[in-house]
Amino acid sequence: MLNYDVIVIGASAAGATAALTARKHYPQKSILMVRDVKNVPIPCGIPYIYGTVHDPMKNLIPVDKMMSDNNIDVAVDKVVGINRESKSVSTLSGQEMHYQKLLIATGSKPIVPPFPGVKLENVYAIYKDTDYLAKIDSQLDKTKNLVIIGCGFIGAEMAEECRKKNPELNINVVEMQDHCLKLVYDNEYCELAEKALADQNINLLLNEKVESILGDDKVKGVKLASNKELPADMVILGIGCYANTELASAAGLKIGPTKGIWVNRYMQTIDKDIYACGDCAEKVSFFDRQPSGLKLASIATMEARIAGANLFDPRRVNHGVVGCFSTSLNKKAFAAAGLTAQQATEKGYSIIVGESESVNRHPGLMPGAELLKVKLIFDAGNGVIIGGQAYGASSVGELINAISAFISKQMTAEEIATFQAGTHPALTASPIAYQLVNAAESAVIKNRNARL
Amino acid sequence: MLNYDVIVIGASAAGATAALTARKHYPQKSILMVRDVKNVPIPCGIPYIYGTVHDPMKNLIPVDKMMSDNNIDVAVDKVVGINRESKSVSTLSGQEMHYQKLLIATGSKPIVPPFPGVKLENVYAIYKDTDYLAKIDSQLDKTKNLVIIGCGFIGAEMAEECRKKNPELNINVVEMQDHCLKLVYDNEYCELAEKALADQNINLLLNEKVESILGDDKVKGVKLASNKELPADMVILGIGCYANTELASAAGLKIGPTKGIWVNRYMQTIDKDIYACGDCAEKVSFFDRQPSGLKLASIATMEARIAGANLFDPRRVNHGVVGCFSTSLNKKAFAAAGLTAQQATEKGYSIIVGESESVNRHPGLMPGAELLKVKLIFDAGNGVIIGGQAYGASSVGELINAISAFISKQMTAEEIATFQAGTHPALTASPIAYQLVNAAESAVIKNRNARL
Repeated sequence: MLNYDVIVIGASAAGATAALTARKHYPQKSILMVRDVKNVPIPCGIPYIYGTVHDPMKNLIPVDKMMSDNNIDVAVDKVVGINRESKSVSTLSGQEMHYQKLLIATGSKPIVPPFPGVKLENVYAIYKDTDYLAKIDSQLDKTKNLVIIGCGFIGAEMAEECRKKNPELNINVVEMQDHCLKLVYDNEYCELAEKALADQNINLLLNEKVESILGDDKVKGVKLASNKELPADMVILGIGCYANTELASAAGLKIGPTKGIWVNRYMQTIDKDIYACGDCAEKVSFFDRQPSGLKLASIATMEARIAGANLFDPRRVNHGVVGCFSTSLNKKAFAAAGLTAQQATEKGYSIIVGESESVNRHPGLMPGAELLKVKLIFDAGNGVIIGGQAYGASSVGELINAISAFISKQMTAEEIATFQAGTHPALTASPIAYQLVNAAESAVIKNRNARL
Repeated sequence: MLNYDVIVIGASAAGATAALTARKHYPQKSILMVRDVKNVPIPCGIPYIYGTVHDPMKNLIPVDKMMSDNNIDVAVDKVVGINRESKSVSTLSGQEMHYQKLLIATGSKPIVPPFPGVKLENVYAIYKDTDYLAKIDSQLDKTKNLVIIGCGFIGAEMAEECRKKNPELNINVVEMQDHCLKLVYDNEYCELAEKALADQNINLLLNEKVESILGDDKVKGVKLASNKELPADMVILGIGCYANTELASAAGLKIGPTKGIWVNRYMQTIDKDIYACGDCAEKVSFFDRQPSGLKLASIATMEARIAGANLFDPRRVNHGVVGCFSTSLNKKAFAAAGLTAQQATEKGYSIIVGESESVNRHPGLMPGAELLKVKLIFDAGNGVIIGGQAYGASSVGELINAISAFISKQMTAEEIATFQAGTHPALTASPIAYQLVNAAESAVIKNRNARL
């Protein structure tokens, strides 16, 4: 029987980061990563296979090199059982491996809803498997009419990349909410994203439910509850994913309310020698500690840095999910952190919103100048920031991380209004017009006026 | 006699922001801005006049529009005296204006050191005056040999812009320190900046002091203490600036140890009805509250947001200068916040440094991928971050503001290592490789190892 101090099941963002973190914190421990796929795609990079990097094999996490560089063994095998009493796992190839500490990072699987016709040929979900992803690529080459179901990040990004790949493709995206990306943005930011898609000749159908997928062997169309029929020789499902908890459930580990593996604030399951992190693990919101279904690679790696460090000495604490997102649509960056105004209101917050926009250069004639707008959402009671959204120049991808820092440290509008930002003509808005501080100042004034 | 609730002297970053802030916080008060220049250049934009926007008139703060849009009166006149007893100012045109609250934002003036020959024709300092800046532009058209004295931000940026304007120009930059930009970066980051300048055929002379400027009427050369002689038909001085405190001194206001107008934490001078902010005001360090000579537009606006809000109700507090800088040299962004490792050591800190680098895209084949590296400096005692430096992709211009947030909230390496960053293939490094968290994690590990 193989014997390791640490066994990590999974090799994507969570598994890889957890193994690397364990290595850094426990240089003397033996560590094994078990993964059941030949190649490990970069999860958030998957849409960009189709219009940008052009090959699933160019979108890989270099897991083997990362692990061998850090003295971590890797077994390409599938764990089929966890024996908590003997503290061992058994694999498909018949191995038994003993652990001191086990870390489960089995990720998520795409939701395939029970639409009639969902099993027809040329209906694809987004599985993290390079062969499968390559099949999507070659099917796209033959497709004239594409329907994407769901317009969250995956749906929107897939639509854009399919447009890049084939300027002639007829693309319909069906979303049952009244806006795309509704999970993350307030309506006016959703509308900017909708415009970015429309400007690329992507047809978005909002407030529409899929009734069935049409066809005999192969897909021929999508029928909506509104009775509309969309022609389709290919359908892509982009409606989210669910935690892959099969192994954990079978081992008797507790499953949480959002169907993830229950973990405590140290990322321990009910078995103190078994940790879980990433998409497979249950999460709570940073704001009210209610269950959260958010699944993001950046959350997965945060949890992995906690779980990996805690294995033999639990001291890092998970304060819950802030949720920090970004994407790029039609060359404009969209980012968000924390709660939207709508979510905050639904959670019972009384809120104050501060907004600011400016070009991201000064003077505005500097090369590369483009709009960058910011919306910050504050708890009206104590003035603490609870969310932010940003749109425009690509530096939004890092600006949102300043907002995430503000949220994680519960900064007030007053503090942000006098925050010391760095500014430069070639890199940011002017210090007079700097969006983060001006958005906060506008909230300060609104809040004061509301109280006078 | 004119009578205003608020009079602001000065119209640059500090004056404009203070006036706008006062208007937001005190909508009923009458406000007058007095400025003594026809046009107000964007201070940090001045170098970019020469190689990028090509006209001083394209680098203006639109002060008149900002003020009229916000119901703030503007007088183009020069304040020549402050009478604290009668609470009034007198101007060059003979006006007497009464104030309830006075805000002094008279900025700074370039240092013109007493080198022999410094008054020769074609020796220029960087005055914030459009006519003068236009003279520099037309003189550059006639120049074959340029010497820039000082290689801080202004010197380095001027050198690059003069190179853009004239690819044939012979450019020598003389710096008395052993590195350029030494005030802000540790040596290895300075060296990256030096390479960026050298790659543009800019000749940097380090560890060199100017002995005299040579010539009869017009400048002909620069003689160094090392006895080298540099040919020059134009010299630009870029060796910093001093607080413009003439008016304040004459009015008997206290001047601080770095020769700025002394202010308390609410930005009040010793006269409680007179506030000062920006380059003219004395500053203390965020870290140890020792006097700080830093002068930056972003600090000026932060102080202006405090001073403007406090005029009739002092409640915002200035916690001192963090110092958050950025620039762009040869298309690479350079940014820094807080203390360098060297400065921290000189101040008596025991420090731990964490570093991380990665491309700013994932996978690395994504368009626009380039290196982005980060160095974070922590107090080894409590693990609190006290400084950061970043280099590479232009998103560094906003990434440094996340670092500035970390510093202002005194986040520990542990907290930053588990910080929830947003990441995206087209905008940032991967969540596994994300530089801010990995730099912090590397400091955590080093600190732990140092204690074992």
